[in-house]
Amino acid sequence: MIRDLPQIRHDHRLDRLRASMQNLAVDSFLTSDHISLRWLSGFTGSAGRLLVSDSTTYLLTDGRYAEQAEKQVQGTGIEIVIGGPSEQMALIDRHVDGLQKLALEADRVSWLEAEELRESLRPDVVSTPGIISDLRRIKEPAEVARIEAAASIADRALKHLQPDLANKPTEIEFARALDYAMLNTGAEGLSFDTICASGPNGALPHAKPSDRVISPGDLVILDFGALVDGYHSDMTRTFTIGDADEQSWVMLKGVTDAQELGYQSLQPGVVASEVDAVCRSHLAELGLAEYFVHGTGHGVGLEIHEAPWINSRSATTLQEGQVVTVEPGVYRPGLGGVRVEDTVLIAASGPRRLTSAPKDPIV
Amino acid sequence: MIRDLPQIRHDHRLDRLRASMQNLAVDSFLTSDHISLRWLSGFTGSAGRLLVSDSTTYLLTDGRYAEQAEKQVQGTGIEIVIGGPSEQMALIDRHVDGLQKLALEADRVSWLEAEELRESLRPDVVSTPGIISDLRRIKEPAEVARIEAAASIADRALKHLQPDLANKPTEIEFARALDYAMLNTGAEGLSFDTICASGPNGALPHAKPSDRVISPGDLVILDFGALVDGYHSDMTRTFTIGDADEQSWVMLKGVTDAQELGYQSLQPGVVASEVDAVCRSHLAELGLAEYFVHGTGHGVGLEIHEAPWINSRSATTLQEGQVVTVEPGVYRPGLGGVRVEDTVLIAASGPRRLTSAPKDPIV
Repeated sequence: MIRDLPQIRHDHRLDRLRASMQNLAVDSFLTSDHISLRWLSGFTGSAGRLLVSDSTTYLLTDGRYAEQAEKQVQGTGIEIVIGGPSEQMALIDRHVDGLQKLALEADRVSWLEAEELRESLRPDVVSTPGIISDLRRIKEPAEVARIEAAASIADRALKHLQPDLANKPTEIEFARALDYAMLNTGAEGLSFDTICASGPNGALPHAKPSDRVISPGDLVILDFGALVDGYHSDMTRTFTIGDADEQSWVMLKGVTDAQELGYQSLQPGVVASEVDAVCRSHLAELGLAEYFVHGTGHGVGLEIHEAPWINSRSATTLQEGQVVTVEPGVYRPGLGGVRVEDTVLIAASGPRRLTSAPKDPIV
Repeated sequence: MIRDLPQIRHDHRLDRLRASMQNLAVDSFLTSDHISLRWLSGFTGSAGRLLVSDSTTYLLTDGRYAEQAEKQVQGTGIEIVIGGPSEQMALIDRHVDGLQKLALEADRVSWLEAEELRESLRPDVVSTPGIISDLRRIKEPAEVARIEAAASIADRALKHLQPDLANKPTEIEFARALDYAMLNTGAEGLSFDTICASGPNGALPHAKPSDRVISPGDLVILDFGALVDGYHSDMTRTFTIGDADEQSWVMLKGVTDAQELGYQSLQPGVVASEVDAVCRSHLAELGLAEYFVHGTGHGVGLEIHEAPWINSRSATTLQEGQVVTVEPGVYRPGLGGVRVEDTVLIAASGPRRLTSAPKDPIV
């Protein structure tokens, strides 16, 4: 059901890593983080290590993944080594013996593993947090195609099911229907646990679907996404079942407008905190800022939440090729909440929505 | 659809942690690991920290989780603090100022976070890997009830769907049908991505379901589980569609017998590596040991894979109250594979299966 996706060139990514290594003056890099592993090599096994030096790349994994590893890293030039923990350590030890500095992603390696490597290896083990996640910020067209395919699946699922919101489903029933619709139309999985939060439950930004029956007059927050070849989509819409009270309309219009303003501000070169400020100050004008209890957005890719972060403390400059969410929300304990969110590509010409379900809130 | 589950007493767990802290001579403990957080406090938010000292326990989280945190930790005596990163750091700093040693789960905290805490806090930051996962090894009756409820959901799903294996579904279709059946009968989620690997695909222990049509003569490995209140089940069965060739029967009988022998050996007091040896030596007698490329089992609980580990290097002694898998398998590249697995409670009287689907392999 998904059109042919353009191929990902992992060898190009390894080249980009080697350029980063040169900038950081390290001559080797080791990771066991499964996201970094997948991004660099295409390998999706649950256990493995990638060892990169100037000239060679080894994927170390165990017997469970021998055949899978061979299939997945074909054509990348990566050498596969199969063995248990001690054999893997011996290979690493031998390979880095003459080198000076081994870089670890300090934000993605445990303190325990870092200490063990420091104690057993000859080169200096140095902390390079974000070395891979920084490279992952800018999406290749092949990655955007995957996120867009995932977003389209979510769009279609909502279009198909939205009328059913009026038929008094429980939150769980409706969330599950969304899940099924996505899985039946090409999603390889869910981007995250679908949120369907109605009435007062909407006041919890990360509510779990409950047995509550969705009823006339409710605000209903739907936050969901699909997974395509490891890439996520992320979209939130808030609906009213029939008409809503005035307070709900103020929240709906305020958040929808704030989201549109935030979206428009997603230009290459803007500082992320400014996008947050655009949304926050619009809600402040309406006296709603105190109910906007989270950041405005985050990057989306192989992780549902990844760099760059868009919040009041985020000094990073947004760049062409980044895919981020913009998702202001207001949450009033006891009453309910509203959140509106798109996944957006920052293109040279400005922002482009990858999620495109309509925002008319009335069911 | 799930009978009432017995309540979990988080205050008892905090008492157990304090006893461990006393043994390790530390006067405070900090974690941001979501499994440790959930086990200790009941809080399931995606971002939070728990700070435990002799007399007090604080849950630190941000505004998104204010209402949820209050609901989830009710009755535990835990104090909730809502704030951003800097406010959380200030509280931690103030609270541990007069203390001597702050323990971190070195296997579950990033190197980056450990270094940051070391640099900014007055007490010694000490590495206590496994401090919580060791406590989690022994399951309370309330935990066993949840794992058993999850296992029953998986059992029923298989019973209901097994005949359909003969109707030439693709691997994806059958895997999805299992998923739906579990989610429609009380599972809050899947324990992990369901494995349905037929024919040669069965040679990959962690194969992803494909478009391959399941056909007469195939061996089909199904590995799946349900999630109930955060607790996992894990079960594998291997079927033949109609009759199979002799080689397949040798593998099927060998693995099924090895699994039964491993199961019988799960007595309180046995060393984990001995259970592995029981399975491995039975397969060795049949000349199949070289195809058994993974360990024999693992603990199951809030994580699908957790301590204790059952493999050839595992010197831990298995104890009453632990819940583990026993899952020997053989994988022959190009031909296919067989794996048989149960989730088992080690009771005082010996092993008790929590997964109980029949093992007759013929569909």
